Amino acid sequence: MKGFRFSAVEAAIKKPGRLDLALIFSDLPAKVAAVYTTNKVQAAPVIISRERSENGSCRALLVNSGNANACTGEQGMLDALECGRKTAEALGLPDEELLIASTGVIGQQLPMDRFRKGIQPLVDQLDHGTLEDVATAIMTTDTFAKIERREGEAGGTPYSIWGIAKGAGMIQPNMATMLSFLVTDAAVDGAFLKSAFAEAVDGSYNAITVDGDTSTNDTALVIANGAAANPVIKGGTPEGDAFRALLHDLLLSLAKLIVKDGEGATKFVEIRVKGAATNADAKTAALAVANSLLVKTAFFGQDANWGRIIAAVGYSGASVEQQQVEIRFDDVVMASGGIFAGGDAEAAGTRVLQQKEFKVTIDLKLGSGEAAVYTSDLSYDYVRINADYRT
Amino acid sequence: MKGFRFSAVEAAIKKPGRLDLALIFSDLPAKVAAVYTTNKVQAAPVIISRERSENGSCRALLVNSGNANACTGEQGMLDALECGRKTAEALGLPDEELLIASTGVIGQQLPMDRFRKGIQPLVDQLDHGTLEDVATAIMTTDTFAKIERREGEAGGTPYSIWGIAKGAGMIQPNMATMLSFLVTDAAVDGAFLKSAFAEAVDGSYNAITVDGDTSTNDTALVIANGAAANPVIKGGTPEGDAFRALLHDLLLSLAKLIVKDGEGATKFVEIRVKGAATNADAKTAALAVANSLLVKTAFFGQDANWGRIIAAVGYSGASVEQQQVEIRFDDVVMASGGIFAGGDAEAAGTRVLQQKEFKVTIDLKLGSGEAAVYTSDLSYDYVRINADYRT
Repeated sequence: MKGFRFSAVEAAIKKPGRLDLALIFSDLPAKVAAVYTTNKVQAAPVIISRERSENGSCRALLVNSGNANACTGEQGMLDALECGRKTAEALGLPDEELLIASTGVIGQQLPMDRFRKGIQPLVDQLDHGTLEDVATAIMTTDTFAKIERREGEAGGTPYSIWGIAKGAGMIQPNMATMLSFLVTDAAVDGAFLKSAFAEAVDGSYNAITVDGDTSTNDTALVIANGAAANPVIKGGTPEGDAFRALLHDLLLSLAKLIVKDGEGATKFVEIRVKGAATNADAKTAALAVANSLLVKTAFFGQDANWGRIIAAVGYSGASVEQQQVEIRFDDVVMASGGIFAGGDAEAAGTRVLQQKEFKVTIDLKLGSGEAAVYTSDLSYDYVRINADYRT
Repeated sequence: MKGFRFSAVEAAIKKPGRLDLALIFSDLPAKVAAVYTTNKVQAAPVIISRERSENGSCRALLVNSGNANACTGEQGMLDALECGRKTAEALGLPDEELLIASTGVIGQQLPMDRFRKGIQPLVDQLDHGTLEDVATAIMTTDTFAKIERREGEAGGTPYSIWGIAKGAGMIQPNMATMLSFLVTDAAVDGAFLKSAFAEAVDGSYNAITVDGDTSTNDTALVIANGAAANPVIKGGTPEGDAFRALLHDLLLSLAKLIVKDGEGATKFVEIRVKGAATNADAKTAALAVANSLLVKTAFFGQDANWGRIIAAVGYSGASVEQQQVEIRFDDVVMASGGIFAGGDAEAAGTRVLQQKEFKVTIDLKLGSGEAAVYTSDLSYDYVRINADYRT
């Protein structure tokens, strides 16, 4: 990746022995597009970065795990600003060119002594780190680092888009305890970058759900620094369309990795609703199914209990005529005309659910509305992980 | 209880050795008021009983557990009607005077041979059963039968109200996989009975949540047969107010028993939101907290993680100013002005969560809106029970 440098250190914000403070730096002035949590309770770094990214330019991103700096009041704002200022100074940037992000426990003040000690080494190591290091440093309950790469070209000039993300609980549109950072050396028109990124987030991160909780810290952003020296990519052009498609594809891959790494997840399930009265209805119904505890525990138990699925559709608020509904597990028709399909559907459906990945298709047969949502099951380990998270 | 008879038998709809078919019979013509599920997918007995109860009179109720007769199409309707007809015939009643209710697995046809065999013995034993037998027969994953009794008087004449209920999963306004049947020998004006009952349900069953799922079979009803021979209780009178209060108190007690018996529950938690912009906002925020998996697993883990609570309030959709929010665990202030209260709040809050019952109070300090919701924690056993339910 041209013109970007990366760094990550152990600052002892998390338990010792784990990377927890990281930096992404662009050698060139760069464009940025970002999407933040819709939660009304917002962490200090979200409040700061939202404002700083509004003008569309940024040079660097400081991120930590282990502490969300959320619900920390005035002190939390002061601390976030100080971390940002120290980093910007060490990089020789104006404060406004640096964005910040945090993830971890809510409601505890930042351990500022550790930040004060960690920032200079972080900057010093910029020539030695990789994006993988950053992906590792932002993990909380994630069990693996999530990184995806795509290659494109514009006007004969090749460019790259790389992206990282962290889950793993509180994953629900809009958006998640989710951080996701993309860098690209493509030269991209700023306004187009914003619209393309927002659209790609909508079709990816806003289509996944692990537990229906939305966090205080969600941040997804892309930094484009033009180091590839391609002709600037604009909307309404073939190059723009290609860039948009790459962005969407990369984000969807990261989104799926997040669901696969959902806390305690043993299943990866696509919930597809079609034949809905509207697309919005389809998404409403798909989310109700994907978030139903009874459905998710049935997936964990490999129980072909389509009744819980139709019940969730029924209470979702979407328009439903129960005698029309068809439900499939992969290609197995479990219910048709709102009733059990009979025959060997039970045995065949159970076999589908014994796989690690499968698709549930719900056809409401009312219209042409359609939506897909990706989710996981609910296992003993989800409870264990979240009952013990802070201890 | 004057003028009511009860009966329950083992019809082998559930696993052998458990009561699963029951009957409530009024010796006198009686008034009925009923509330049914808001799920758009509705079980056959719900469709039938909703229509039959509309005229406000009924003599008997047939109920089974082990099979919900939901998503069973035309055959399910025919079977439900046949069960009703056979029972009404044996009782010498017109079909319309008999209501029916079912709970259990969705999507399987009723085992009609067992109903055909079970109904006559059920009717024959009407002189020998009790309301406790009926309460036992409607249990599914419930671990204990739920029954409450209240005594009142009107114009110097004593009367009784008895009620039973079943939970235990899919408990969420409006309403639950919940059946609840009340009988009273009071003479009550029909229109008043309807409004008083609907109001009491709203303040009780519609204020509890176990897992956010709403079932296809919810039915709550009260049958009043006037056998106490009191002056008819009407609205807008002291007797009406007293009856209304008793009804609400009885239903709230049953509702709390349902939450205490929530699947796998180890905690009983009252979530009280006050200072909200409106009562509706307060209920929205309280439900978001009560249904948050992250909050519920923290309760299970006895983790005083108030950050997850404020995060749930933030994404609930209710108006929130984060720097105003105060959160208490019983009397312990955990957060004030949106930030951690400090001192020994962590230790004291943890001690509160180690109790089996406690109260979480969230003061938004925006207005005078207030609401209480009752919920349970999310334990390993919730997952076990629901992963294995059908097996």
